[in-house]
Amino acid sequence: MTAGRSSAAKTGVTRVVCEQLAPRVGDLSYNKSMALDAVRRALADGADIVVLPELVTSGYVFETAEEARTTAITVEDPFFSELSAVLAGTRSVVVLGFCQHADDADDTLYNSAAVVDASGVRAVYRKTHLWDRETLFFTPGDRTPPVVDTAHGRIGVLICYDLEFAEMPRRLALAGADLIAVPTNWPLVEHPAGQYPAEIIQAQSAARANGVFIACADRSGVERGQEWTQGTAVIDQFGWLTSAVTAPTTSSNPGDSEQRAAADLFLHLSRDKAISPHNDLLGDRRPDIYAQETPLL
Amino acid sequence: MTAGRSSAAKTGVTRVVCEQLAPRVGDLSYNKSMALDAVRRALADGADIVVLPELVTSGYVFETAEEARTTAITVEDPFFSELSAVLAGTRSVVVLGFCQHADDADDTLYNSAAVVDASGVRAVYRKTHLWDRETLFFTPGDRTPPVVDTAHGRIGVLICYDLEFAEMPRRLALAGADLIAVPTNWPLVEHPAGQYPAEIIQAQSAARANGVFIACADRSGVERGQEWTQGTAVIDQFGWLTSAVTAPTTSSNPGDSEQRAAADLFLHLSRDKAISPHNDLLGDRRPDIYAQETPLL
Repeated sequence: MTAGRSSAAKTGVTRVVCEQLAPRVGDLSYNKSMALDAVRRALADGADIVVLPELVTSGYVFETAEEARTTAITVEDPFFSELSAVLAGTRSVVVLGFCQHADDADDTLYNSAAVVDASGVRAVYRKTHLWDRETLFFTPGDRTPPVVDTAHGRIGVLICYDLEFAEMPRRLALAGADLIAVPTNWPLVEHPAGQYPAEIIQAQSAARANGVFIACADRSGVERGQEWTQGTAVIDQFGWLTSAVTAPTTSSNPGDSEQRAAADLFLHLSRDKAISPHNDLLGDRRPDIYAQETPLL
Repeated sequence: MTAGRSSAAKTGVTRVVCEQLAPRVGDLSYNKSMALDAVRRALADGADIVVLPELVTSGYVFETAEEARTTAITVEDPFFSELSAVLAGTRSVVVLGFCQHADDADDTLYNSAAVVDASGVRAVYRKTHLWDRETLFFTPGDRTPPVVDTAHGRIGVLICYDLEFAEMPRRLALAGADLIAVPTNWPLVEHPAGQYPAEIIQAQSAARANGVFIACADRSGVERGQEWTQGTAVIDQFGWLTSAVTAPTTSSNPGDSEQRAAADLFLHLSRDKAISPHNDLLGDRRPDIYAQETPLL
């Protein structure tokens, strides 16, 4: 646990809104407008923290690296100043995914997420665990994700497949994150009727194991034949879903609804890791055990 | 991943049976008989691997350390030779929890699990993450759990609360476990209707994140007012439940049924960690990232 650096206003309700969107692959202009509209809509709904999907400004199912490159922007792109302008006069925070190129002299591409408030871009994280064909287009990040101290508590960032490595949410929780924002594009995978999508199960597990809130913004629409889990969800610090997930189980019922998940949360509850009179979620860790060699008998 | 040491017969079906039982707290004699009967029943059902609950020979809700001590046994106790005798002539393996005292000269108590086959006790693991009032009676183990190479694949062992620390199943998977056997006593906690018990969610997540099978044997009955989740489950390497979990959501419907979960599994499938043409569950880990300090911005 790190020393407190957050502002005092941490005991009120924080409204977290995840917008499930359907960008058009390769259509940077359309997607930028769609993302800004989604933020305006969420703010009108009272959102303090807004989460948009992974690669929301670019789309996902690239055919070539060249196509990905045409959608790449730097953090100097006017899109981010427009986004800050939308947030002007508010204390709200937006976390969204975008296709990043390092700078104008370097066209290396990253699958990145930005944390933005009215003051500008607070942090950028480059996805470190790339999924499937992303490895053809993107360079994996080489820096651990940050925790950003905002007007609404400490926000950690992960992108999609990152969340499936329990090391990642654990590290963010140990660094003091109250909420982990997860821009994501979860390709639809068939799952047994009556069981939740596996990505939701892993998000619930990460929330409970670390006593942190998790907000996942997934995709809607169908992109070049790719359907999505539509697992957009806000999960509380006990791992419970705060609203129903309407994910389809198979491709027989694809959806293109731009639905949302919204929840009013007391994020400061994440700071209490006591789960019994004798137990503390993070304090009960046994690094001495984890450092030992496992015997094979 | 460790070098293969297993016997050749790994490509057949393995029948895993978890027996959900109701020991009587403090009644060592009754509980030993009950455990042996449960093993006989599972063998009659064709079990290759049998998992029984945590502390099955002692019960759980001790009032005093003295009471716990009256139920403590060493690995030299005749119970284990009787169990091996039950297994004589079979290649079957039993994993069960027991209240252990170190030896006759040392009455330190451990919440332990044993891996037993016809040849005797193959391994003992002392729970390293103690839950709630267990801390009043037991000394936490100081050794990481083993992976035991059996006639039916490599079995890792965790006990109850251990499983909620993702570091633990991860370590067993990295050491080559095909199946993690989890003797458990999950106290009933209310959970939202339509959502699975949190402990099940964490077991599913651990299975999927590591590509390993997980078999949890929980408690039934009511012990000194304590009800149980009754979450006995066999989970496949994708994280899916292989049979329905009939856990009650609240204490309005406590059960005392000695139900079981049984599944016929191809345990060798755990050795394939490829989950896309470009991804490997364990190979995709980024220890370089996990070793970095998280920036607080």
